[in-house]
Amino acid sequence: MKNKNIISRNENFAEWYTSVIKEAKLIAYAPVKGTMFFLPNGWSIWNKIQQELDRRFNPMGIKNVQLPLFIKYSDFILEKKHVQGFAPEIFLVTHNNKTELTDPLVVRPTSEILFCQCFKEVLNSYNDLPILYNQWCSVTRVEKNTRPFLRNTEFHWQELHGIFAKEQCAIDKAKIMIETYRDFCQDYLCIPVLMGEKTINERFAGAENTYAIEALMQDGQALQCATSHYLGQNFSNTYDLKYQDKDNTYKYVYQISSGVSTRIIGGIIMSHSDDNGLVLPFKVAPVQIAIVTLRNDESSLAYAKKIANDLEPNYRVELDNSDKGLGFKISSYQIQGVPFVIIIGPKEIEQNQVSIAIRTSENKINVNISELKDYISNLSKTFDQQLFDKASMRLNNSIVSVENIAQLQQAVNNKQIVLAYFNDTIDNEIQIKQITGATARCIKEVNTDPKNKCILTGQPATHLIYFARAY
Amino acid sequence: MKNKNIISRNENFAEWYTSVIKEAKLIAYAPVKGTMFFLPNGWSIWNKIQQELDRRFNPMGIKNVQLPLFIKYSDFILEKKHVQGFAPEIFLVTHNNKTELTDPLVVRPTSEILFCQCFKEVLNSYNDLPILYNQWCSVTRVEKNTRPFLRNTEFHWQELHGIFAKEQCAIDKAKIMIETYRDFCQDYLCIPVLMGEKTINERFAGAENTYAIEALMQDGQALQCATSHYLGQNFSNTYDLKYQDKDNTYKYVYQISSGVSTRIIGGIIMSHSDDNGLVLPFKVAPVQIAIVTLRNDESSLAYAKKIANDLEPNYRVELDNSDKGLGFKISSYQIQGVPFVIIIGPKEIEQNQVSIAIRTSENKINVNISELKDYISNLSKTFDQQLFDKASMRLNNSIVSVENIAQLQQAVNNKQIVLAYFNDTIDNEIQIKQITGATARCIKEVNTDPKNKCILTGQPATHLIYFARAY
Repeated sequence: MKNKNIISRNENFAEWYTSVIKEAKLIAYAPVKGTMFFLPNGWSIWNKIQQELDRRFNPMGIKNVQLPLFIKYSDFILEKKHVQGFAPEIFLVTHNNKTELTDPLVVRPTSEILFCQCFKEVLNSYNDLPILYNQWCSVTRVEKNTRPFLRNTEFHWQELHGIFAKEQCAIDKAKIMIETYRDFCQDYLCIPVLMGEKTINERFAGAENTYAIEALMQDGQALQCATSHYLGQNFSNTYDLKYQDKDNTYKYVYQISSGVSTRIIGGIIMSHSDDNGLVLPFKVAPVQIAIVTLRNDESSLAYAKKIANDLEPNYRVELDNSDKGLGFKISSYQIQGVPFVIIIGPKEIEQNQVSIAIRTSENKINVNISELKDYISNLSKTFDQQLFDKASMRLNNSIVSVENIAQLQQAVNNKQIVLAYFNDTIDNEIQIKQITGATARCIKEVNTDPKNKCILTGQPATHLIYFARAY
Repeated sequence: MKNKNIISRNENFAEWYTSVIKEAKLIAYAPVKGTMFFLPNGWSIWNKIQQELDRRFNPMGIKNVQLPLFIKYSDFILEKKHVQGFAPEIFLVTHNNKTELTDPLVVRPTSEILFCQCFKEVLNSYNDLPILYNQWCSVTRVEKNTRPFLRNTEFHWQELHGIFAKEQCAIDKAKIMIETYRDFCQDYLCIPVLMGEKTINERFAGAENTYAIEALMQDGQALQCATSHYLGQNFSNTYDLKYQDKDNTYKYVYQISSGVSTRIIGGIIMSHSDDNGLVLPFKVAPVQIAIVTLRNDESSLAYAKKIANDLEPNYRVELDNSDKGLGFKISSYQIQGVPFVIIIGPKEIEQNQVSIAIRTSENKINVNISELKDYISNLSKTFDQQLFDKASMRLNNSIVSVENIAQLQQAVNNKQIVLAYFNDTIDNEIQIKQITGATARCIKEVNTDPKNKCILTGQPATHLIYFARAY
């Protein structure tokens, strides 16, 4: 059943996006510009993401911690590159009630500085290294143009921070983290991604190198899904974070940080959802299976409860025997992205069957209840695989190689991801963006062949790069 | 093995408390006064508390949400009683970077206002009621004298907010919430509590009534462990939160809010811990069983791994076969509050046994590995029961009835909880505090016998009240 409040993607992709969010009851807008109320449907998606990442982080020796919201302004301004990047975005606490603070407080826009201060409290000798701490929290940044999940004044994320004795160990771990995110995105969220280093212009403020994964949304724009930064000794030098080595000398640590934010929820929506509302991968769906009854009598309820009991040990199940109409109930669950709705009517009961409505299919399937558990087990795998395959095909078909700016312009207008040789400097990238609206998403590979020229300057290219319009 | 860095409780209770926190590596102090770095040991205790409360909240129809950090100052100042209570404690964001905001932002000290705004977005008709939303977050309050967990500039909590059509339903739910917390505290944290209404002076700013649970710490001071507030229509009137009733008229909702904060970790420490460090109930301990080996050879490790594998499906187990000395390892785990340390040496292996060091006992127990699982299962229950019984005996023995101010003064000096008849007014309570240092912790019962006189004024008493010095 088509929900009239959901605009079609072809009509207006941006309005479709916000209408899906509203109709699926993920968030409501809060009074302070760019902030949101995460409603139960929205917050439980984030909780699932948290649980899954924690499950993956735990065997990697990553420990969860929690650091404060406030950074002293006098500490904040010490690391110059970092401040240049973040100062325009900070919210500053200057008063407690009506009393002015002598040293204002920065509401954390990210926590590199706080982690340096925390590590100083626990780090003594080389024996303590490496240390890998992660925190789940929200951060705030001043934003002019805000959109739910994609760009918020306050957003939630996990930020992992690691310190190492050896440079190479830090670099390796920064790469392992981005690979961890890639696998998480592809396997758990069914979102295929491109992975690579960022160009100089797109690096995190204060990082030596940034690795990223990038996904393609249904409107042809790229979305950065996660980043991992090799910070070198920039912060450890500035914040005097060192340890006593075997030779008894004091040395500065090498650092990394990495993170996934609630932005990824926008990525799930724009990767998988359709004109009927939200589509969620089976693995991440807060409710995986809804059971609805046509009639509200005792035998229907008993039958529904038996099925719920059978499925609940393995799946997140919701039984709805409310008085609302069957069509309305099915439609509500589908708008909210519940993958499977099991329908029970008199005919199904008589035949020892259920009817299953699959979120991504028009047809209903009849399954005998003796086969239901096996059927759902297979169907859930197929469901997620199909979401991934569909998005993969879109990504793969989108990528095109170009040899000059005009072709890049045309491909970007055509909603494609572009592979082009490029001479990676900040100025060159700013020019590309001014001309085409596209930004470098990530580096595919270093260029070693001098015959390959930069599409902007005609000089020998340093890299082969993915360009796209991006969120 | 006594840790020399832990001060004894008799010597100096306050220093003992902070030394336990430091040696058990729960937190480190952060640069902004009153804020903390929650280290892995500290944060994982809070995570366990979260999981357990979520497990209890879920079948009560309570849904987790997440609301913003910022409240508009212009919204904040509308509810007069609430503002009176909280204005002195707020942190105010006046600038983004160097630009002054026209309407400053309050960093939430609590979220009643935000929840009103959120409920307005989802509430339409009587059909939607009741709604019970909970959030896990941190709040900030300006504090002069700060102590880890007990009084922090920023602290973490859950805040549950509920809206109802009927006054009585709201009042009933506020009582059910405090009973839920009582059961949680007693059953999960092994902390016996007193439960009752708060006096007028101790009510939450903006509440019609506040219910609380209070525990007795080892130094004779009371600690408020959780509160539940019946808010009436104070907030719904001010923030225009109403619904369409069956008769099509619009009516204001009745509200409640309730919460448990990281303060409860202070309560766990001061209820159970001893001069050897942290003591944690088995249920809440992040590591419940540590397995340590005397020697670091292959057969020891194989034996230890087999035991770990046997126990891991049911318990949180850590295997430590590091090269550190056995005494050091056992002592480290005990300082950190690990309830059971299983020790494996050549003698144990030869006899198919393990030796178990229990955190609260001097002796070690030998157990045959074929009986280990059953033994641990029983031991864990006994361990928690003994913690609860010990604390219960302390609480029960502490309570004394008094008939005048001099007796109250003496009992409070004697580290006792005092039961006294009292005429409950704000002025009377302020006087009691000025004279004795004690505050009303909660109301035991309403007084109906006019012969019972207020210990302060000699007038007929309104209530029988628990008084104590309190954190």
